Amino acid sequence: MIFQTGTTLRLGVVGLGCRGTSQLGVLLDMEDVTVTAVCDVYEDRVQAACAKVREAKGTLPFGCEDYHKLLERKDVDAVIIMTSWTTHIRIAVDAMNAGYPVAMEVGGASSLEECWQLVRTQEKTGLPCMMLENCCYGRDEMQVLNMVKKGLFGEILHCQGGYHHDLRDEVGNGDINRHYRQENFLHRNGELYPTHELGPISKVLELNRGNRMVRLTSMASKARGMHLWMQKNRPDHALAQAAFREGDVVTTMIQCANGETIVLTHDCSSPRPYSRGGLVQGTNGIWMEDNASVFISGLSPERENYWAPEIWEPFSNYRAQYDHPLWKAYENYGLRGGHDGMDFLVLRAFVESVQNGTPTPIDVYDTAAWMAVTSLSEQSIALGSAAVDVPDFTNGRWIGREALPESVYALDAVHDHLFND
Amino acid sequence: MIFQTGTTLRLGVVGLGCRGTSQLGVLLDMEDVTVTAVCDVYEDRVQAACAKVREAKGTLPFGCEDYHKLLERKDVDAVIIMTSWTTHIRIAVDAMNAGYPVAMEVGGASSLEECWQLVRTQEKTGLPCMMLENCCYGRDEMQVLNMVKKGLFGEILHCQGGYHHDLRDEVGNGDINRHYRQENFLHRNGELYPTHELGPISKVLELNRGNRMVRLTSMASKARGMHLWMQKNRPDHALAQAAFREGDVVTTMIQCANGETIVLTHDCSSPRPYSRGGLVQGTNGIWMEDNASVFISGLSPERENYWAPEIWEPFSNYRAQYDHPLWKAYENYGLRGGHDGMDFLVLRAFVESVQNGTPTPIDVYDTAAWMAVTSLSEQSIALGSAAVDVPDFTNGRWIGREALPESVYALDAVHDHLFND
Repeated sequence: MIFQTGTTLRLGVVGLGCRGTSQLGVLLDMEDVTVTAVCDVYEDRVQAACAKVREAKGTLPFGCEDYHKLLERKDVDAVIIMTSWTTHIRIAVDAMNAGYPVAMEVGGASSLEECWQLVRTQEKTGLPCMMLENCCYGRDEMQVLNMVKKGLFGEILHCQGGYHHDLRDEVGNGDINRHYRQENFLHRNGELYPTHELGPISKVLELNRGNRMVRLTSMASKARGMHLWMQKNRPDHALAQAAFREGDVVTTMIQCANGETIVLTHDCSSPRPYSRGGLVQGTNGIWMEDNASVFISGLSPERENYWAPEIWEPFSNYRAQYDHPLWKAYENYGLRGGHDGMDFLVLRAFVESVQNGTPTPIDVYDTAAWMAVTSLSEQSIALGSAAVDVPDFTNGRWIGREALPESVYALDAVHDHLFND
Repeated sequence: MIFQTGTTLRLGVVGLGCRGTSQLGVLLDMEDVTVTAVCDVYEDRVQAACAKVREAKGTLPFGCEDYHKLLERKDVDAVIIMTSWTTHIRIAVDAMNAGYPVAMEVGGASSLEECWQLVRTQEKTGLPCMMLENCCYGRDEMQVLNMVKKGLFGEILHCQGGYHHDLRDEVGNGDINRHYRQENFLHRNGELYPTHELGPISKVLELNRGNRMVRLTSMASKARGMHLWMQKNRPDHALAQAAFREGDVVTTMIQCANGETIVLTHDCSSPRPYSRGGLVQGTNGIWMEDNASVFISGLSPERENYWAPEIWEPFSNYRAQYDHPLWKAYENYGLRGGHDGMDFLVLRAFVESVQNGTPTPIDVYDTAAWMAVTSLSEQSIALGSAAVDVPDFTNGRWIGREALPESVYALDAVHDHLFND
């Protein structure tokens, strides 16, 4: 089942909720991609997706409610999984065992064992396995990565990130809109959604490529936000009296083998503006997302005198010179897809890696390690913020694995278009 | 040795380095205060302080290099300790045992035992014992406290703060300028300086008054900043080859009895603008120092539509209505003293508490608990980020102790002046 270069990549899409439907649209806009099979546990979603594919491509895909049937298709080259968080890995494992390259949407793991299953299956089959962490393709995140690689921040010491997103409506109405977040917030207490920030940080710190996470500890605040929201907005619902387990603010500290620290925050049950709370600090400078600023020693304006305070410089000052090459090309090509263009880029990265037989920029070790943080943080909180060790999913390979070349982020489609026009 | 109301308060000042000299100047500007004894281990500092007192007050104070001699003086009503971090508690214990009310500058403890010594001695003597945590009197911090008390943020969930201060020059030249920070950075690894942020947070969360810290865990990044600074700026100095132990970024998570979490950061060895990194988040809103913003549900401007992002509102919008009453009065009185006026306020709080025989707004339990965080964070880091329990220095009294009344922050001198003019 090796994809023939130059032909249209035929995808099977599993999971057609809000996110799956959105990403399906991005995929269907690609000329060298088609969708030959779709699957969701809800029949209405399958029908809607079939109609959407036919409208875009003129052909009706195979539709099913049991993903095992999709994994029997001969007309599928690769599978994209956009189901509920807790089902990503089991479907990915089955898909690789059935011979398909897989990409999966973001989310966290329920156990370390399923992370190991993912790794073992990928190593056994040799098939691509990539998390579709779109924030690795965020313009700011990629510019910061570019500045890190060019040494502007010096040696990196500390990174922070968070998923600061008021999702009370979504969680509170989860039973109506069939969103799995509600049951996760009801039953779990941990860093449920680490990858939007940990993904870009992982690239900055070159985790699994000469560095790795070795230890973490987590702490959860009390859980009040969802209870208050339910009481106010759905007072007659059974959950208005329920105890949501997920702490309103969950903080996780991670130590890396090379001595860096990472702080992650999960913060989705309180009123506040959205932020991914990015911060990268090195021996020569610092970037902070929340004030949209940097301070780079030797580049940022010098303070007036020794007693005057150092002052922040707008991050935007560095856009022209340090915008990531991929993003420069992408802007010329024309931004498309959701979430400020990130969705298109991450899907293209998977599509073109499969088409070209090249390594995916996010691989199974990244996916397993990032997802494991969820399970580990739950353990740590359950044990009173005990320090827990992060497994080495590479089994020692991290020491010798080299950093990704910048070209791994380059998108052929973008560059072809750019350089040929 | 009870101070006679209406007479001049006679202070003994121990510790006359940079900080002690600066605070001495603030004290000498007060009409109802004089300084009758000064002490420092360096004779030149004693002489300079004596001259400074005589210039301001016309009388020469007693001077000594051994603080035990100062503690024999009959002409001293209270003692203010502004020595190196690791000597505050032992001097405070001796001072209380000698019968003097004590105030001490900020710093962290070296052991839990010395925190208990401080508490036991205060309980035995009944004398005031106050940490001079000036940041409890920061205008922004007090405004936030005022907004918290008025319920704008709802139920508080999470607080953050940090000591983000590029002190490489001070640490690197510590042997020249006789500053103790150098030896602490050389030998210790922990949250060495927690109180500038933990003090104000403690007032927001009403720690030791119906709430308390129960557990913490700390993590340190590698230590690179001081090594690089020494190699660049003092390459021939022995310390250019030394291993500084203090991690460049040390993060500490603290759990409170009422379920809130606190995150502290110590960050003094890297180039960056100064910040105390304040953040207070509740069920109804959030304040963030680094972007000088708040978001208050129901008060901040509503987003354009359901899909539009919530946006931050300038913190300054709330100054006129929520500036703390003390600060309104202080502004009319006329700001004075260092650090944007905080130094004067915190010193007045001690002076007037002793003059009036009223409780100090920061007491021995606050002082012990805040200082203990340093020792506990060192333990946690030494144990691989183990969770360690924070002692209850009140021995159960925290449950019944009521929140401080707002009037405890009021300064008679300020109000007298304000209302009489």
